[in-house]
Amino acid sequence: MSRLWDKGLELDERVLRYTAGEDHLLDGRLVPFDVRASIAHAEMLAHTGQLSDEDRDLICDGLKTLEQSHAEGEWSITLDDEDVHTALESRLTAAVGEAGGRLHLGRSRNDQVLTALRLYLKSATSELEAQTGLLVGALSRVGQRQGDVELPGYTHMQHAMPSSVALWAEGYGEAFTDAAAGLSAAQRRLDQNPLGSAAGYGTPLPLDREYTTRKLGFAATQEPVTAAQLSRGRAESGLLFEITLLMQDLGRLASDLLLFYTQEFSYIALPHAMTTGSSIMPQKRNPDVLELVRAASATALACLNESLLVTAKLPSGYQRDLQRLKPPLFRGIDLAFESVDVMAHLLHELEFLPDNIKLDDGVFAAERAYELVRSEGIPFREAYKRIAAEYAR
Amino acid sequence: MSRLWDKGLELDERVLRYTAGEDHLLDGRLVPFDVRASIAHAEMLAHTGQLSDEDRDLICDGLKTLEQSHAEGEWSITLDDEDVHTALESRLTAAVGEAGGRLHLGRSRNDQVLTALRLYLKSATSELEAQTGLLVGALSRVGQRQGDVELPGYTHMQHAMPSSVALWAEGYGEAFTDAAAGLSAAQRRLDQNPLGSAAGYGTPLPLDREYTTRKLGFAATQEPVTAAQLSRGRAESGLLFEITLLMQDLGRLASDLLLFYTQEFSYIALPHAMTTGSSIMPQKRNPDVLELVRAASATALACLNESLLVTAKLPSGYQRDLQRLKPPLFRGIDLAFESVDVMAHLLHELEFLPDNIKLDDGVFAAERAYELVRSEGIPFREAYKRIAAEYAR
Amino acid sequence: MSRLWDKGLELDERVLRYTAGEDHLLDGRLVPFDVRASIAHAEMLAHTGQLSDEDRDLICDGLKTLEQSHAEGEWSITLDDEDVHTALESRLTAAVGEAGGRLHLGRSRNDQVLTALRLYLKSATSELEAQTGLLVGALSRVGQRQGDVELPGYTHMQHAMPSSVALWAEGYGEAFTDAAAGLSAAQRRLDQNPLGSAAGYGTPLPLDREYTTRKLGFAATQEPVTAAQLSRGRAESGLLFEITLLMQDLGRLASDLLLFYTQEFSYIALPHAMTTGSSIMPQKRNPDVLELVRAASATALACLNESLLVTAKLPSGYQRDLQRLKPPLFRGIDLAFESVDVMAHLLHELEFLPDNIKLDDGVFAAERAYELVRSEGIPFREAYKRIAAEYAR
Amino acid sequence: MSRLWDKGLELDERVLRYTAGEDHLLDGRLVPFDVRASIAHAEMLAHTGQLSDEDRDLICDGLKTLEQSHAEGEWSITLDDEDVHTALESRLTAAVGEAGGRLHLGRSRNDQVLTALRLYLKSATSELEAQTGLLVGALSRVGQRQGDVELPGYTHMQHAMPSSVALWAEGYGEAFTDAAAGLSAAQRRLDQNPLGSAAGYGTPLPLDREYTTRKLGFAATQEPVTAAQLSRGRAESGLLFEITLLMQDLGRLASDLLLFYTQEFSYIALPHAMTTGSSIMPQKRNPDVLELVRAASATALACLNESLLVTAKLPSGYQRDLQRLKPPLFRGIDLAFESVDVMAHLLHELEFLPDNIKLDDGVFAAERAYELVRSEGIPFREAYKRIAAEYAR
Repeated sequence: MSRLWDKGLELDERVLRYTAGEDHLLDGRLVPFDVRASIAHAEMLAHTGQLSDEDRDLICDGLKTLEQSHAEGEWSITLDDEDVHTALESRLTAAVGEAGGRLHLGRSRNDQVLTALRLYLKSATSELEAQTGLLVGALSRVGQRQGDVELPGYTHMQHAMPSSVALWAEGYGEAFTDAAAGLSAAQRRLDQNPLGSAAGYGTPLPLDREYTTRKLGFAATQEPVTAAQLSRGRAESGLLFEITLLMQDLGRLASDLLLFYTQEFSYIALPHAMTTGSSIMPQKRNPDVLELVRAASATALACLNESLLVTAKLPSGYQRDLQRLKPPLFRGIDLAFESVDVMAHLLHELEFLPDNIKLDDGVFAAERAYELVRSEGIPFREAYKRIAAEYAR
Repeated sequence: MSRLWDKGLELDERVLRYTAGEDHLLDGRLVPFDVRASIAHAEMLAHTGQLSDEDRDLICDGLKTLEQSHAEGEWSITLDDEDVHTALESRLTAAVGEAGGRLHLGRSRNDQVLTALRLYLKSATSELEAQTGLLVGALSRVGQRQGDVELPGYTHMQHAMPSSVALWAEGYGEAFTDAAAGLSAAQRRLDQNPLGSAAGYGTPLPLDREYTTRKLGFAATQEPVTAAQLSRGRAESGLLFEITLLMQDLGRLASDLLLFYTQEFSYIALPHAMTTGSSIMPQKRNPDVLELVRAASATALACLNESLLVTAKLPSGYQRDLQRLKPPLFRGIDLAFESVDVMAHLLHELEFLPDNIKLDDGVFAAERAYELVRSEGIPFREAYKRIAAEYAR
Repeated sequence: MSRLWDKGLELDERVLRYTAGEDHLLDGRLVPFDVRASIAHAEMLAHTGQLSDEDRDLICDGLKTLEQSHAEGEWSITLDDEDVHTALESRLTAAVGEAGGRLHLGRSRNDQVLTALRLYLKSATSELEAQTGLLVGALSRVGQRQGDVELPGYTHMQHAMPSSVALWAEGYGEAFTDAAAGLSAAQRRLDQNPLGSAAGYGTPLPLDREYTTRKLGFAATQEPVTAAQLSRGRAESGLLFEITLLMQDLGRLASDLLLFYTQEFSYIALPHAMTTGSSIMPQKRNPDVLELVRAASATALACLNESLLVTAKLPSGYQRDLQRLKPPLFRGIDLAFESVDVMAHLLHELEFLPDNIKLDDGVFAAERAYELVRSEGIPFREAYKRIAAEYAR
Repeated sequence: MSRLWDKGLELDERVLRYTAGEDHLLDGRLVPFDVRASIAHAEMLAHTGQLSDEDRDLICDGLKTLEQSHAEGEWSITLDDEDVHTALESRLTAAVGEAGGRLHLGRSRNDQVLTALRLYLKSATSELEAQTGLLVGALSRVGQRQGDVELPGYTHMQHAMPSSVALWAEGYGEAFTDAAAGLSAAQRRLDQNPLGSAAGYGTPLPLDREYTTRKLGFAATQEPVTAAQLSRGRAESGLLFEITLLMQDLGRLASDLLLFYTQEFSYIALPHAMTTGSSIMPQKRNPDVLELVRAASATALACLNESLLVTAKLPSGYQRDLQRLKPPLFRGIDLAFESVDVMAHLLHELEFLPDNIKLDDGVFAAERAYELVRSEGIPFREAYKRIAAEYAR
């Protein structure tokens, strides 16, 4: 099965392996999106008279068949295919003949990969936003179940003011509502159609870019053509940034719960099914999920860094460097899905143990100072000093 | 001049220096914003009957006077003041007496610092957005002056397709238009009023938070109170992320120009006033500005990392760790202003040298393949192979 | 096949999948090292009278058999095994019966995983050091083949002083010699035996830690026992730091060659077998390998960051977070091997094209100033000014 | 006062400010090291007959006088000086006349700045290593004072095995001993003399590089000349990497102490002089120092990243980008000194409160399993299961 740019010259095996990298493994998830983009391209070519209706139908039917057989596990992308684009085009041509060779007119792999990627990312971002909403719901139910339980409000990890499970859960609820809004805002950079920018400099062909923009549901056509490749990495990093914020807030939630789960706090119970054991200490029930969620923010931030570093300092125009954007992107997305899912799951079983939670007397000190202000009309600073004197040892 | 929380106990000098850090140097820029927030707070206290109108007027006039004398260089924040908040409150009390001691009722430094910071950041972000617009304008004028000059369109740093100075400049123009839109979107997380959340758990006092939200021009009141401290770092990192994207695109523009400025390319000329010399090689005119802009993306990304790392894994509630958010934030902002400014300036003087720009024959190969498709009706893949055969050596 | 810490309680499937992560896929490479460490442990137990010689022999033979059958692809670690340690112990017990259950006496998975990991890392680091030596050799041969070819010596990407292919290649040769020395130095943190520290607090059993230190070839026994878990991540990050430096220098070498390979420079030729084509532009031969090597420094640095971030701010003692150290570590190591290999390979075929390399006249300006100093006895600054005047336009 | 490379052409003010950056503020600490390197260079020129003995003496005496007057605050580097090198050479020439103009023969700012920087870094690294030793001493004294106090040994933040203050303190002691050894090893990359590599391509002058290597106390002369600029950033990042490890272990120590200092643990007391108050809650004594130390690892890692990113992907040869290495380098060094100092100081006053420390029964479970193994001769796995059954709820 030959590569799209194969001109019959031998390619060093080691070079092929190094340049193909993991693309054949990663690209599986892009199959439906590349099919969708290729169909829109074929329809546009037919619409503008650059492809016969027969060929268009052969192409579209062939691609749909390939998408389905891929979904059913009948074929997968191989190292020799190199990537999803070659895998589909070569299989299409094998299936429908010459028409397959007409599909690539007026596009380049540069705009093709970017189009498929953006369609995938738009979809994944929406799903992740929805899943983050489930997390907000899980926190809200924590508040409904045990919102009245008193908690110390901490500053500097010290008891500071009176608080409650409701305030604690709602604070995180707002954080994840904000994360969802951030994911939604990250769509702005994704929602632009690069198809038709070809290798990054357009083509002299009469392409109707607005046509594919409409067909593919993009909010806008990316203009000028040179903007498409220059924007590579920006939307990807934008999504990874939002994922990093999300994972950091998940990590902080895990930190709180790990603290509450220590024997010294004993503020919460976790179901057995969500803790794991030790190979040496028979008594242990370990909150591994929480630890792994805490550590996952490291992975998310590393993915963001990798993405930003790949494009840093590059001259404009497509560079093969951009291929290295995919692994951290997919890794970050998958991690976010799994982590949000497991935490929502855990929150459904979280139980606060009110009997173990004792508020330090000092948490009412500010309130007593306010009382002095009200009853004696003295300035707050004066009241503060009087109360503070009681606490000085 | 005593610290707000001073209860008369000695504080270790070394500890003071370590905990105060650079705050007294950094906080100068926050004076007008802390004054504005304190005035709104005093007016709200008076509006809700918790401060007399006389005291409110004393406080507001006193603060305005202090803002002006600070702007005129009559005083500055010292290490002993620790930060802008102590510096202002203690000077205010010295100036207007007891009324100054009434100002802090119902707020904490935790919500106070966050309010002043957000007001500053909203303002700085707007200004940076405007300045980025000037950069877009400078690129547009490059296109107006020399847009017709042919340029090779590069992929893989190789001549790929025909392009032009217009396409090149407009591609970057779109990148910076996008950067400006990103800065504007970063306001979403900044535009929420934390004032009234106090130490992060509210107060039992009858504060009217909507009142200060309106007075300070925030789009919303941040709710619940526990959300305020949990959100620390998120808006800051959001702004630094947008700055990082902006600086990376500036860096890529610099990379292009550094390439074009090599003797081997000789595509552009830079005015003498924008290059510097060598201490040993009398003939050299070095494009230092471009190199420093290229390297500046490293600094921007490091600022983003520092900001994200400060809050990573922290339990909820205010932690002193958050103080370390300020230095990377201010450093990143200042760097972006300077770099955008110097690049806009340089672009005004940029001159392409058309005589030195020669397009490789190969850039028309794709066009010739399209021509074959059109004239002979063969599939693009077939045409591609025929033309490719000519180039195979 | 049951997990080591399984006490018969059901474990949530989702939790199992999240906590096991990719360990079962990653751990394959650790099989020979965990076998080696387990054998040393069993021998030590027998040596100290805590295991019979029969049981020791059963264990050692069983483990060797398992190592071999794993190498021959007869079994691999599954998700249900969770990790290499469970996979081996449960298969061992299935094969040799009760003796297998005696192996874990006096150790914990905490010291077990760390021991296997360090043995692997010591070995991988040595190999990478050797492979980096091959790269130095490849550069040296570039110098032997074409060392006399003149090159401009660049500063600020401008012709600065006369240089040569020899000086260019030797500069990089020294960089990779230094990288190899850095890898060697990174062994210091790896070369300490953690076995016997158990869960991180030792055991009351009469373990002979020096015995396993000698058997396993570690330079020292890590003391005190609490140091073992606290040091997790330090040696790993140390290795990833050296890999990052190595990859950055490889990336800079790639940047030089990408510059030299532009049509404008045309300083070098690359064999066809090491370039790839374009899907749209039939004329293109793209230096993808060099671009991917350049981008690989992004991945290396991200791996380093991930590793450092995983342990940041953690309380002491083993935490499950540490499991997240493995993926970036293995990814970084594999990337370094592949990249060093492909670049050494490419350098063997690299050809400079002397006819295309022209030095700018100015590169001799410093030499002319030196000549003035010598012939007229004037200060260098004076000579510099005279020569500079000739270049001022 | 004119810049070294000034040829009488006007330089854009904005460009000057952008290119000079903070160098004039940062370079103060380099004065003694640039003086030392310049004296060695002048002596070498005289030794090789390229400078008269009279001029050498004028230069050396002039430089020593300038160093002293700088130390006494009589002058400092200004923006117009640009950097330490211009500041010294122009003041020297003003003081001693023509001889000053002879000093720069055979060197470039490129090797000059690198030499001064390495001399400074060698010195700072030694000092930091010594200061880290003081921290080890402070931990050792914690063990001497209260080593016998029982502590739970934690894994997963859960009581796991019996431990003690001695084991806890010694674990950290070993970590900082390792940090000191790491700092010492980081000298390897610093300890090479770049002087004489000039702009990076040597000079045709008869320089005696071994002479300055000996005079300046470097372990080796850096060869070939092209290696000097290519190595920029490597030694710097090496030092910052060691600082990052050190700061991360300091941060983990702070995390432990913050946990122990919560009201729920109440394992330790801190002296009043080392805690700070709250502006709103009169009762609070906050462990700010520990929080700031915890957060400082974020800054250290950001400095490391900035340093690595500056040089990433750069073509070889000096680039002005390298100037951006200095701020993160100096920031990281200063932070390490301050943080190590404040923590050593705090440890001197740290007091564990044995009455509040209760070990969970379960910490003896492993020991009980060992006992079963010994008394009944059953395999550890069997004993583990029996004891575990008791803990199953």
